[in-house]
Amino acid sequence: MPDDFERMWADLAPVGRSAASGGYFRQPYLSAETELRAWFVAQAHARGLRVESDPVGNVVAWWAPSGVTGPGVLTGSHLDSVLEGGAYDGPLGVVSALAAVDVLRSRGFVPARPIGVSVFVEEEGSRFGLACLGSRLAAGAVAWSDALALRDRDGVSFEDALSGAGLGAAAYEPWDLASTVGCFVELHVEQGRDLVDRGAAVGVASEIWPHGRYRFDFTGSANHAGTTRMEDRADPMLTYAMTALAANKQARLVEQRATFGRLEVVPNGTNAIPSRVTAWLDARCSSESALEALVDTISGQAQDRADRDGTLLEVTAESVSSSVAFDPALARSLAADHEEGDWPVIPTQAGHDAGILSAAGVPTAMLFVRNPTGISHSPDEHAEIPDCLVGVSALADTLERLAR
Amino acid sequence: MPDDFERMWADLAPVGRSAASGGYFRQPYLSAETELRAWFVAQAHARGLRVESDPVGNVVAWWAPSGVTGPGVLTGSHLDSVLEGGAYDGPLGVVSALAAVDVLRSRGFVPARPIGVSVFVEEEGSRFGLACLGSRLAAGAVAWSDALALRDRDGVSFEDALSGAGLGAAAYEPWDLASTVGCFVELHVEQGRDLVDRGAAVGVASEIWPHGRYRFDFTGSANHAGTTRMEDRADPMLTYAMTALAANKQARLVEQRATFGRLEVVPNGTNAIPSRVTAWLDARCSSESALEALVDTISGQAQDRADRDGTLLEVTAESVSSSVAFDPALARSLAADHEEGDWPVIPTQAGHDAGILSAAGVPTAMLFVRNPTGISHSPDEHAEIPDCLVGVSALADTLERLAR
Repeated sequence: MPDDFERMWADLAPVGRSAASGGYFRQPYLSAETELRAWFVAQAHARGLRVESDPVGNVVAWWAPSGVTGPGVLTGSHLDSVLEGGAYDGPLGVVSALAAVDVLRSRGFVPARPIGVSVFVEEEGSRFGLACLGSRLAAGAVAWSDALALRDRDGVSFEDALSGAGLGAAAYEPWDLASTVGCFVELHVEQGRDLVDRGAAVGVASEIWPHGRYRFDFTGSANHAGTTRMEDRADPMLTYAMTALAANKQARLVEQRATFGRLEVVPNGTNAIPSRVTAWLDARCSSESALEALVDTISGQAQDRADRDGTLLEVTAESVSSSVAFDPALARSLAADHEEGDWPVIPTQAGHDAGILSAAGVPTAMLFVRNPTGISHSPDEHAEIPDCLVGVSALADTLERLAR
Repeated sequence: MPDDFERMWADLAPVGRSAASGGYFRQPYLSAETELRAWFVAQAHARGLRVESDPVGNVVAWWAPSGVTGPGVLTGSHLDSVLEGGAYDGPLGVVSALAAVDVLRSRGFVPARPIGVSVFVEEEGSRFGLACLGSRLAAGAVAWSDALALRDRDGVSFEDALSGAGLGAAAYEPWDLASTVGCFVELHVEQGRDLVDRGAAVGVASEIWPHGRYRFDFTGSANHAGTTRMEDRADPMLTYAMTALAANKQARLVEQRATFGRLEVVPNGTNAIPSRVTAWLDARCSSESALEALVDTISGQAQDRADRDGTLLEVTAESVSSSVAFDPALARSLAADHEEGDWPVIPTQAGHDAGILSAAGVPTAMLFVRNPTGISHSPDEHAEIPDCLVGVSALADTLERLAR
């Protein structure tokens, strides 16, 4: 049903898009993301699916023919974006899941297990800083009281944001995954060029690298930028600058990933030496020991420079996700025996709700759709419509294997 | 009249002060600064001074006894602050000027030339980016159309800010300085520790270093912080970080000043390589040739690094102020022959409205009051009350010499 996919895709295109940059701003509980979740519920109702939602706005639309019960096959992704993100990261998985249900129905397929299309909130952590917040709560991987206390950049708490969106609860009950979710399959645009290099439209994930977010608070002494002699300064900007270069160099040396992409400067005035620079390190490695070693090396070099600059450094791990090896038998079985040959099985450095559910014991798999730019978290993120339709078909085949 | 000074100082203490940091936020045309200007007008009226204001909110309160006309002796400073600034930078000169009028009246002094107490707006440039905006307009040093087009960080134009404050005009007529301002004396808290080292409560300025603000726009490619290989990146944060370190190193090498204290990152997300980093360089040197050479060296090193990083760099001089040598005869005459001996005559690296009026041909002088911390543009900026009262007395003596 290519028409359905393209019609749904066209529905979403304008929502939360900046006319200036072409990037998307779909932060949870703000207008664009709220509109997308409402759109999803309407699509589910139009298909006669049974909609369940929880107190944070995670939603599942169930396709369970009469008499079909027990743990289901869950598929879906997220609708939120990073700040100035692309169109595909998240929504492609949701739209493809709805389209795959349409394909299965057009094939006359009747599932022997319930099939659920899911949307988890705040996958990117772009508002409250903790990635996969919705799936972490559903899996019981973060405490309700800790989640409620999270704040966005304007100081709004998660609790108040929920309340403003007509959501929230005194207590949050994690999902009963064992009895409701037999397995989870997330389709996602590839965030790299592996499938381009392999000449394949779709692939299957083998693992997610361990990764974490670390807040570096550099504190110095505010002073006049003109009258303060260079040797009398305690300038946290210098400590930060060296740390950003060190992170890049150390990651290159060990062939891992380290990025400083977010920064807050106080007071952030042209003619004032800052009193404080707060910077967030995003680090990802092929093993947990490599991640620990990389962050230790960067922190150590930052501390050495702080000592020389007369500044103070505090490093806080805001979230650290262990490596996730997706169910190997499931990946192999999904990848094998297709008309076009076996699909490639490849790792990813990006975190996903699928990683959270896998860590919670749910047999989990991911399908990737080729991204010709290889770029993600950017308006340049892309997938060609024919590849998206191959993805829908691949997801339908996968659901048919799992739910028959 | 120490009581008057302390009472006025206590009036100002809470206005625009952050309870969290103790720093002041007195940006032009916002509530705190508007309150301060209203306070000033009330103080002027209470003293029977004649208040004149212009279409941008520059205000002069004139003390001109009947029959006393011609170019006057102007004294005063500004009431706006940097973001999270100190209490003294600006307001000390305004309060001291009002207190000096009180002292002169208590001495029974009758001026033979008008004495004016002035407040210029947006001296710090903390809202619209161009320091000394009010005095530049008054002196005809910036075009009205250029000023109106300036925008603050929220995109509000200077024109709209004026309109919102009930100010503005279709055209702005620079002041007739030749016929109204015979000389200008600005009292200011010292922004350094020269007077501390010399053991003097007050000093006289010899010169202002040439200085400028330069915007560095670093442009790269937004991408996913996890999935993008280090070697595939065009990360403008790295180019910026090296530039910040280079600016510090080059300024140290030639014993001048260079600071990156303000930064904007787009999209500023933890898991996204930035597409753009904009940073403002504040540079100050003992000569104009040294300033040009320093900025050229920093820009050149930044461009070299941009070439290696695959990023783009654009450098824009937002404002450059030439060196100002204050009237040497005036400085000598003000500094000489005091009970406590001659006052020190010292240079400053900070820009002031006095520099703008001096460049416009007005014989100009500055008095500095000792700052025990040496810190400025920070909540730690300070002056002891006894030193402030010595400053008031010194300003009164100075006005008496100039207006008798």
